[in-house]
Amino acid sequence: MNRPIGFLDSGVGGLTVVKEAMRQLPNESIIYIGDNARCPYGPRSVEEISKFTNQMVDFLLTKDIKLLVIACNTATAVCLDEIKARVEIPVIGVIQPGARAANKYTENGKIGVLGTEGTIKSGMYVKTLRQKNKTLKITSLACPPFVPLVESQQYNTPLAKKVVAEALVALKNKGLDTVVLGCTHYPLLRDLIQKTLGNTVTLIDSGQETISDVSILLDYNDIAKLSDDDSPTRRNYYTTGSPELFKEIADDWLEGDIHVERVTISELETIQANMKRG
Amino acid sequence: MNRPIGFLDSGVGGLTVVKEAMRQLPNESIIYIGDNARCPYGPRSVEEISKFTNQMVDFLLTKDIKLLVIACNTATAVCLDEIKARVEIPVIGVIQPGARAANKYTENGKIGVLGTEGTIKSGMYVKTLRQKNKTLKITSLACPPFVPLVESQQYNTPLAKKVVAEALVALKNKGLDTVVLGCTHYPLLRDLIQKTLGNTVTLIDSGQETISDVSILLDYNDIAKLSDDDSPTRRNYYTTGSPELFKEIADDWLEGDIHVERVTISELETIQANMKRG
Repeated sequence: MNRPIGFLDSGVGGLTVVKEAMRQLPNESIIYIGDNARCPYGPRSVEEISKFTNQMVDFLLTKDIKLLVIACNTATAVCLDEIKARVEIPVIGVIQPGARAANKYTENGKIGVLGTEGTIKSGMYVKTLRQKNKTLKITSLACPPFVPLVESQQYNTPLAKKVVAEALVALKNKGLDTVVLGCTHYPLLRDLIQKTLGNTVTLIDSGQETISDVSILLDYNDIAKLSDDDSPTRRNYYTTGSPELFKEIADDWLEGDIHVERVTISELETIQANMKRG
Repeated sequence: MNRPIGFLDSGVGGLTVVKEAMRQLPNESIIYIGDNARCPYGPRSVEEISKFTNQMVDFLLTKDIKLLVIACNTATAVCLDEIKARVEIPVIGVIQPGARAANKYTENGKIGVLGTEGTIKSGMYVKTLRQKNKTLKITSLACPPFVPLVESQQYNTPLAKKVVAEALVALKNKGLDTVVLGCTHYPLLRDLIQKTLGNTVTLIDSGQETISDVSILLDYNDIAKLSDDDSPTRRNYYTTGSPELFKEIADDWLEGDIHVERVTISELETIQANMKRG
């Protein structure tokens, strides 16, 4: 039960999910991998997103994880079902929890969804929300410049303000009462997004909602780490990009001592090839 | 996906869980069985509770349910693990959701647990709460007269007031900020319990919390009924006791048209024997 929970993301966005895991499940060990070298995933083809995501899954499986969180909306949209089918541990994506929360919190049934091009093009939020409630009115908006802003630590610069304000013009006057931050990078821009949309809009952080699912599935599968288990809680971070840059953002966002290691893309490819061989 | 969700209880208490299911998952079909003829379960032996509960599980399995809710704390305490091990569909009890919520809402770490003798004697709440957080101070209290009060529809009579006030004296001056209604019958006495304990105490309705788990497991297992599935939503209630009495209480507690059928104990025994053979 002290095996770690694995998290993967295209970059640093999944750290917003890790932050919530550390708050709600402080006992649990965590292994995180961010594919910063190939970020952003949003504009990539389905084939690339699937290949890169599966490489990270294989990497995490070599670390003996007990549960996998696909802490990236784009990767969830493209390959959640495929990964659930091929691995034996529980796998959780970020789209269903976000959709469930939006359907729960909306009062007027008018919901906005912000995401990467890949996520929005997949139509997964619209499909998932409509499956829950077909009367919902949903406005989707791809925000391609947001992830590069976050990955370059521009959360509140004049450039960030301008980019966010311009992108969200399309959502004004739609009467939305609930907007899903359908990319785990976007909570880092939350203040700017809230200011632009106004205080009458409830923002849903899909990653935050995801940790409730994690907690329930740990209990349901009897794999939660128990409070009297005194084995150390480990938190390890890996990136295909620059560990220094990753650490800078992680230090900004998370409590505690952050240890980041580099894993190269060719290492990921070797692990994947070995897994396939069997 | 339009297969029903099965609910079982020693009597009418599980209807408090069904009520929440109807609110959060209005699309889902429901089959309910209450063992009113042999209620209360609280004072019974572990062997009897297990035998009776398993008979109801077998009955629900003949109705092709897709997910099973053990909407009875006593039955959850005694045989959740055994039932999870023997049936192939997802099985959810009411204790972990209640414990998770209590650990989430308490601020001073002083939690009370009310339950039947069987639930309290099993120590399951204390064990589950301590597994989550070993610093919690937990006071457990068996309340044997509560279930008979509810089953005889005495929610707010002078007798009910007296019985509840006397039972809860043991919890006064303990500084509890959170008390778990660790029996699905107790929400029917909620107003009386709240008045007796005072407004500074947060009451946790274990059944209400359980439906979040149901919703997440329906999504996780891809078995939620979709909103564009126009097949009718069925709700069927069975009791081993008097259908008229059951219907009176259900009409009081639930919206909509309630149809109750009798199933005899000897029918349950036959189903169980056939299952064992088959």
